Amino acid sequence: MSETLRDYCGVFAIANVEEASHLTYLGLYTLQHRGQESAGIVTCGGRHPYQHHGMGLVADVFDEENLNKLPGDSAIGHVRYSTTGSSNLTNAQPIMCEYRRGWLAVAHNGNLINTVQLRNELESLGSIFRTTTDSEILIHLLARNPQTDFLIALEESLQRLQGAFSMVLMNEDYVIGLRDPLGIRPLSLGRCKDGYVFASETCAFDIIGAEYIRTVEPGEMVIVTKDSIESRFFATHERKAQCIFELVYFSRPDSHIFGREVNPARENLGRMLWKECPTEGDVVVPVPDSSVCSAIGYSTASGIPFKQGIIRSHYIGRTFIEPSQSIRDFGAKIKYSPVRSVLEGKRIIVIDDSIVRGTTIRKIVKMLRQAGAREIHLRIASPVWIEPCYYGIDTPERSRLIGATHSLEEIKKHLRVDTLHYLSVKGLHEAVGGSEDEFCNACFSGKYPLLFPEMAEMMTQGHNGKEVIEAEKRLVHVEL
Amino acid sequence: MSETLRDYCGVFAIANVEEASHLTYLGLYTLQHRGQESAGIVTCGGRHPYQHHGMGLVADVFDEENLNKLPGDSAIGHVRYSTTGSSNLTNAQPIMCEYRRGWLAVAHNGNLINTVQLRNELESLGSIFRTTTDSEILIHLLARNPQTDFLIALEESLQRLQGAFSMVLMNEDYVIGLRDPLGIRPLSLGRCKDGYVFASETCAFDIIGAEYIRTVEPGEMVIVTKDSIESRFFATHERKAQCIFELVYFSRPDSHIFGREVNPARENLGRMLWKECPTEGDVVVPVPDSSVCSAIGYSTASGIPFKQGIIRSHYIGRTFIEPSQSIRDFGAKIKYSPVRSVLEGKRIIVIDDSIVRGTTIRKIVKMLRQAGAREIHLRIASPVWIEPCYYGIDTPERSRLIGATHSLEEIKKHLRVDTLHYLSVKGLHEAVGGSEDEFCNACFSGKYPLLFPEMAEMMTQGHNGKEVIEAEKRLVHVEL
Amino acid sequence: MSETLRDYCGVFAIANVEEASHLTYLGLYTLQHRGQESAGIVTCGGRHPYQHHGMGLVADVFDEENLNKLPGDSAIGHVRYSTTGSSNLTNAQPIMCEYRRGWLAVAHNGNLINTVQLRNELESLGSIFRTTTDSEILIHLLARNPQTDFLIALEESLQRLQGAFSMVLMNEDYVIGLRDPLGIRPLSLGRCKDGYVFASETCAFDIIGAEYIRTVEPGEMVIVTKDSIESRFFATHERKAQCIFELVYFSRPDSHIFGREVNPARENLGRMLWKECPTEGDVVVPVPDSSVCSAIGYSTASGIPFKQGIIRSHYIGRTFIEPSQSIRDFGAKIKYSPVRSVLEGKRIIVIDDSIVRGTTIRKIVKMLRQAGAREIHLRIASPVWIEPCYYGIDTPERSRLIGATHSLEEIKKHLRVDTLHYLSVKGLHEAVGGSEDEFCNACFSGKYPLLFPEMAEMMTQGHNGKEVIEAEKRLVHVEL
Amino acid sequence: MSETLRDYCGVFAIANVEEASHLTYLGLYTLQHRGQESAGIVTCGGRHPYQHHGMGLVADVFDEENLNKLPGDSAIGHVRYSTTGSSNLTNAQPIMCEYRRGWLAVAHNGNLINTVQLRNELESLGSIFRTTTDSEILIHLLARNPQTDFLIALEESLQRLQGAFSMVLMNEDYVIGLRDPLGIRPLSLGRCKDGYVFASETCAFDIIGAEYIRTVEPGEMVIVTKDSIESRFFATHERKAQCIFELVYFSRPDSHIFGREVNPARENLGRMLWKECPTEGDVVVPVPDSSVCSAIGYSTASGIPFKQGIIRSHYIGRTFIEPSQSIRDFGAKIKYSPVRSVLEGKRIIVIDDSIVRGTTIRKIVKMLRQAGAREIHLRIASPVWIEPCYYGIDTPERSRLIGATHSLEEIKKHLRVDTLHYLSVKGLHEAVGGSEDEFCNACFSGKYPLLFPEMAEMMTQGHNGKEVIEAEKRLVHVEL
Repeated sequence: MSETLRDYCGVFAIANVEEASHLTYLGLYTLQHRGQESAGIVTCGGRHPYQHHGMGLVADVFDEENLNKLPGDSAIGHVRYSTTGSSNLTNAQPIMCEYRRGWLAVAHNGNLINTVQLRNELESLGSIFRTTTDSEILIHLLARNPQTDFLIALEESLQRLQGAFSMVLMNEDYVIGLRDPLGIRPLSLGRCKDGYVFASETCAFDIIGAEYIRTVEPGEMVIVTKDSIESRFFATHERKAQCIFELVYFSRPDSHIFGREVNPARENLGRMLWKECPTEGDVVVPVPDSSVCSAIGYSTASGIPFKQGIIRSHYIGRTFIEPSQSIRDFGAKIKYSPVRSVLEGKRIIVIDDSIVRGTTIRKIVKMLRQAGAREIHLRIASPVWIEPCYYGIDTPERSRLIGATHSLEEIKKHLRVDTLHYLSVKGLHEAVGGSEDEFCNACFSGKYPLLFPEMAEMMTQGHNGKEVIEAEKRLVHVEL
Repeated sequence: MSETLRDYCGVFAIANVEEASHLTYLGLYTLQHRGQESAGIVTCGGRHPYQHHGMGLVADVFDEENLNKLPGDSAIGHVRYSTTGSSNLTNAQPIMCEYRRGWLAVAHNGNLINTVQLRNELESLGSIFRTTTDSEILIHLLARNPQTDFLIALEESLQRLQGAFSMVLMNEDYVIGLRDPLGIRPLSLGRCKDGYVFASETCAFDIIGAEYIRTVEPGEMVIVTKDSIESRFFATHERKAQCIFELVYFSRPDSHIFGREVNPARENLGRMLWKECPTEGDVVVPVPDSSVCSAIGYSTASGIPFKQGIIRSHYIGRTFIEPSQSIRDFGAKIKYSPVRSVLEGKRIIVIDDSIVRGTTIRKIVKMLRQAGAREIHLRIASPVWIEPCYYGIDTPERSRLIGATHSLEEIKKHLRVDTLHYLSVKGLHEAVGGSEDEFCNACFSGKYPLLFPEMAEMMTQGHNGKEVIEAEKRLVHVEL
Repeated sequence: MSETLRDYCGVFAIANVEEASHLTYLGLYTLQHRGQESAGIVTCGGRHPYQHHGMGLVADVFDEENLNKLPGDSAIGHVRYSTTGSSNLTNAQPIMCEYRRGWLAVAHNGNLINTVQLRNELESLGSIFRTTTDSEILIHLLARNPQTDFLIALEESLQRLQGAFSMVLMNEDYVIGLRDPLGIRPLSLGRCKDGYVFASETCAFDIIGAEYIRTVEPGEMVIVTKDSIESRFFATHERKAQCIFELVYFSRPDSHIFGREVNPARENLGRMLWKECPTEGDVVVPVPDSSVCSAIGYSTASGIPFKQGIIRSHYIGRTFIEPSQSIRDFGAKIKYSPVRSVLEGKRIIVIDDSIVRGTTIRKIVKMLRQAGAREIHLRIASPVWIEPCYYGIDTPERSRLIGATHSLEEIKKHLRVDTLHYLSVKGLHEAVGGSEDEFCNACFSGKYPLLFPEMAEMMTQGHNGKEVIEAEKRLVHVEL
Repeated sequence: MSETLRDYCGVFAIANVEEASHLTYLGLYTLQHRGQESAGIVTCGGRHPYQHHGMGLVADVFDEENLNKLPGDSAIGHVRYSTTGSSNLTNAQPIMCEYRRGWLAVAHNGNLINTVQLRNELESLGSIFRTTTDSEILIHLLARNPQTDFLIALEESLQRLQGAFSMVLMNEDYVIGLRDPLGIRPLSLGRCKDGYVFASETCAFDIIGAEYIRTVEPGEMVIVTKDSIESRFFATHERKAQCIFELVYFSRPDSHIFGREVNPARENLGRMLWKECPTEGDVVVPVPDSSVCSAIGYSTASGIPFKQGIIRSHYIGRTFIEPSQSIRDFGAKIKYSPVRSVLEGKRIIVIDDSIVRGTTIRKIVKMLRQAGAREIHLRIASPVWIEPCYYGIDTPERSRLIGATHSLEEIKKHLRVDTLHYLSVKGLHEAVGGSEDEFCNACFSGKYPLLFPEMAEMMTQGHNGKEVIEAEKRLVHVEL
């Protein structure tokens, strides 16, 4: 994708393996693509918690010295997405607290949808929140839950949460990995030496030589103690709602998520694109890096040669300084450079995995034309994006989604491509494999598997879905 | 290439264009792959020099505030390679001095080979050197040259230098771009609005919308004043010795250097590899990023599908912390991850652009095997590397070059590949195009176009080349 | 004093004056002697809170840029003492929270003594504490208090606190200054332009040109709104327990506290020392800087000339690096230097304001002897320190107080002085003026005006004070 | 002094004592008052030089880690004054170079007056200067001197320097301390264990337990080798010109310089002030800290009590942020606070050591009046300052010296004091002791012991001294 989408984070946990902090550091490093804003690790050494976190990349936040100050053979870790507004160290995870049950550390991937209700309720009872993260809700629920058994209290607290939450938790007794009842975000379980690991993606297992066991199931909590491992279900649900966009864009091609390998799924998206809309062309050119797999799939299916027609720079810093004199297509050029020898006089099949606002791909198209491309046929390896995500992907509001506000013909004209084809929703599911009931495709279909409390109420009052969602969006952007 | 080679730098200059510092910053940013250790800019504003440099990446060293403190419409800039030993701010370029001719700023790409002789001579006359860079030699020669005309003094001083030097210079009157008589390192000339630009690679022209004019010729100095541009030759030579490794590895695929486009040359290397040694296989897999072009060329020529079988991480920090417990192939895993779905059960044609020590490619091969590769056929898109470079590439000494110390059979065994083929020297030149007399291929052939002073002396005394070079290497590593 | 004692902080508040952040910055700067560990400011701009704090000195934590990001015409600020152990940014004040009443900022000087009880109670009800400061207790009490009127809720919450607390609070409606019922720590009220200020010491009024009105009374809260000022008493007490050590050591000589000027009080201590024990000598030499006033008082009373026989360095950094080779009296020399010309062959009357452990004064005495002092008569401008303080002065435990564990004769021998005299408790009160009932002198007398909950219980069970205090100390050092 | 004057630096050297870097660090720490801008140390370990320097205070620049990276048993160190303009790390000392004689490190206190001539001469011969310090001249002279014996080359080079230079030098063979022929700046020699030390002031000996031997003589170089110490004179002069202002202001009261103790000299200044102009008053109040000794002398002589009527803050940071609203006498208040109880209704004898521009003392006087002083009698412990210093004190140009441009009556009015008395030049010398021929008092008398080259020429052409000096000043401020 030429625009940057931000996921809410990657999580990692390890139980009963020496040098837990070092291994967590490595695991987080491979999950870096899921969050570049901040990174944090909490370890449990001799029943006490040790914590270090900071703003920035994993490799910048941690060094030999601070890792050595995190003793113990259990740890949880977190990387967080990057944004400018509310980004600060207070919101960095794992969240740690000391309360009447001792200490607790939590790392969370996903987004709750009943945050406002729960927070209001808890504050009216006297709870004081220290972060603006929805992850802190769980801690306050646990602090107030009267059950003396921690696991029962946890189950009861989890049952009050609605939305997406793949979490790892740790206290002096347990390391726990769990997923929400719909399984919106991924979480896998692995074995490392005599202990266990959890991670958002299995690439984190590979780097430390851990072995993949299985995905944590929706509604399941996997509880690891010093000498046992146990599975409990705090909720069950007849369907799943695994985020299909994880397969399209977020996850690394070498990862397993939702029980699937990402790379072949992504190559299939490219093959399906060709199948749905075969097009003559001279070269297949991906928008790097995320569309390379689909472009290879397309090239294989079509026999049209795959070429590196766009180079991506990896040296981009936080802020880029633009001269006041105008430079044509400055923004795109900082990140992408056209390779004239590949493009000049050619009919180019450009593969991108998705379009959000359409601003950057428009600049890229212009750049390719200036480099001499004769025809540009844009193929998008996912369906038209028509609705925002409320379950953990930081999408813009609906009015800024080009697919929600423009017809295909308008988009084609706006982007100035010769032809444009998006993958169909049907094609998407066929390429990925498995039943449509296993996935959430709300961003492409508008079918939200979970309604916000307000949304549900309006539904019962006879409003149609669109109105509800419109209403909802106003709420969301005010209150969250 | 799976190992990191370091070039001596990238240079950029701009004359008579507003906001020269901002444009130089952008130019340096695109040359970042040529040096990540330090970056510096000197501008000329109202006849006075302004300077800022720092350790680190261009985007980290410069910000809006310090760029705004570099006024003027002429500037030169420099990025420097990264190493641990002698890396420090004192050696950062451009080198600035104030001396009896006023001020002078110099940025240099390449390596002199008569540094020791010139430095000894100058110190014995009372010169005091402040850096350990060989670039400072030129400044001292200029400071002592009795000619009152700066350009004549510059010509005379340049005539005393031997080795590789693509340079940009600036004082209150001139911005000058020049190349050594053999043209070892690249330098191109372009036009930007009403002014001129110089850069090591043309990708630096593209980002600022400058137009490529031509390469600066070996032995040529192109002199830009406020209202004129002039070409002078301070030396002529019957042959050229342009570094062929720039085409194989260093330069960006979207650049023009030595009057050639890099990407098609690199694709040709892949095609030639197939032509020289056609091999059956299921997938063609590049060692990313530098071997992607050759792998595409190989795939196109052979019809074997190109696949992303190895993922490269771009988040690597300065130092990476290894746990004390052993992790198999830790070093390679930090940077590279295998994609099991591409590799499992397959016959893999792995393309790498070159092998230096062979340590990393060995780990990669092992990693691929563990991910299930059935056969591994390693194809190297350049000839066997048998000799060190003395003209600006930071190669290890001869004894650590696997190609210099082992037979092909031994290398194949050491790397544990099923088959191994290097491109031939003849094939290399055929792929790149043009006469062999235009290039330096000493690293592959041992034919050095320029001897060190001591080497020349020994030659005339009847030593053979090998002995001379051996002797030379001892000198070099002691004295430089 | 030659040893460093740490007070718990200085506080400042300003209401309804433009540029509140800048004025608070200046106020905190003059209170710097009360805390060098961290500094923080919260302002109220347009009903919203803005906060900045950091580790270090006021002049290092704040700069033009961050002060300008603190808009509004009301503000509270805090400087915190320096220690190594639990010093961190989380504990920096003012403490800010958002809770069901909106937002609240609190800055606290002093120490509660029922922290453990209140914290246990609150945690058992589900409160989660984020800092280890006792100041956070008040916020949780307020969050749980059912009263809808903020001021009533505040009164009820304050009534649950026991110990020393001079506080300033701010929310979107009020700026409030208050003192505990015994008035242990100081807090003064002043007028600045059309608004009001509170500060631990009046030196903070002088720098901003504010006018001193009066001290805030024990048990009083002074409430300032946009257009009113009101006084309420949340508690009354028949006696006061103002910390007499503020007059002896903590406060600046140019300040007013407890309705007194500090400098004349301190000169009186010196005069009283001479009166209680007139001694022949050649020069009066203070241990700078805190004993200068008393030494001047002694010199005036005795007619013996005051001399600068010890120079104090003001350039001491955080940590001082000691060579491994032994240097005589290294520790004292870093901070103090003897002036040989003043000391050689002389009978020296050394004035120090107090002795805690006795370690540094011992080194100073040795240093004076080596510089040639013939006789050393040590005079301490306060009584023998026999008990720890539990109300906000960070004293060592009893076993490390030299006055608690050694007789006067033993101390004299240990310090190697010719004679030694401490001011009597009676002399102390006479010098300071006012009734003994106005002050807490527990450190000198063992008469604690407030018992810890456990202490009170033991008392009623017939234990004597000593035992109680011993028991208490064990509690304190475990639980706080 | 209420205004800050900046000396050019303090120097320290140690030869043949273990842990030389740590001891140099301690020595520099005690010389901190002579320069707060930057600090640097060079050691010689196993014949090789090791260097560390940085901007800031000694205790901030050095830590355990970087001191441990400075091995060896010989070292030289330097602290540099603080200014904003040309302050940068390039100019930090000791200056290190590598040249044909090997390596050399130089630390310099003082100011040359033939810098321009020598620098022009050296640059015209091809020397390239890297700093703007005049100290670099010596290194270039040494680099060009044809003598093979280093000590002879050094003598010849030193003979070309004119002006003030107390220097310490080190190379792999020698540690050398030397003073210019007039002995303008101080330098003392001491013994430490089996080795030797040099320092600008003897307070640097005391902290490391070194023993004072004697002052280095004007024109003398004291040469220490591994196993010998030798004295040579590179120049002789019939008079000395020791800077009398070192005794008045710069040096620490506990130091020996020029063979005198500073504290009694400074007390004598106070006594002489009373003798020259006995005045009735209630209290003697120094402007702290530099005038405390003279005030004590005045109080002793007059019998009028010494009081701390002005408190000085020691927490001042680099820059102080002023609110835009006007605060009366803001600038003075940041540093000084009046003690009302001392001042109110009293006749105050204020002692200051000197007046340069008069700006700060004017604010202090106003502050004292506002605090209630009835009469203010200002007594200055040195004569009227009428001329700038060219030998190493960073004084403002003549037109900004209040004593050079105003009559005593005008100054009195300007400062709004009731009476004003400056010490006479005769009184100054009487108080300090020794012949007037031993000192430079040019700032008070206009009698410069050394003329600039241009000054000398003008003199011979019949211009009078004033004209010459006026001309000179113009030169100085352009060229230096």
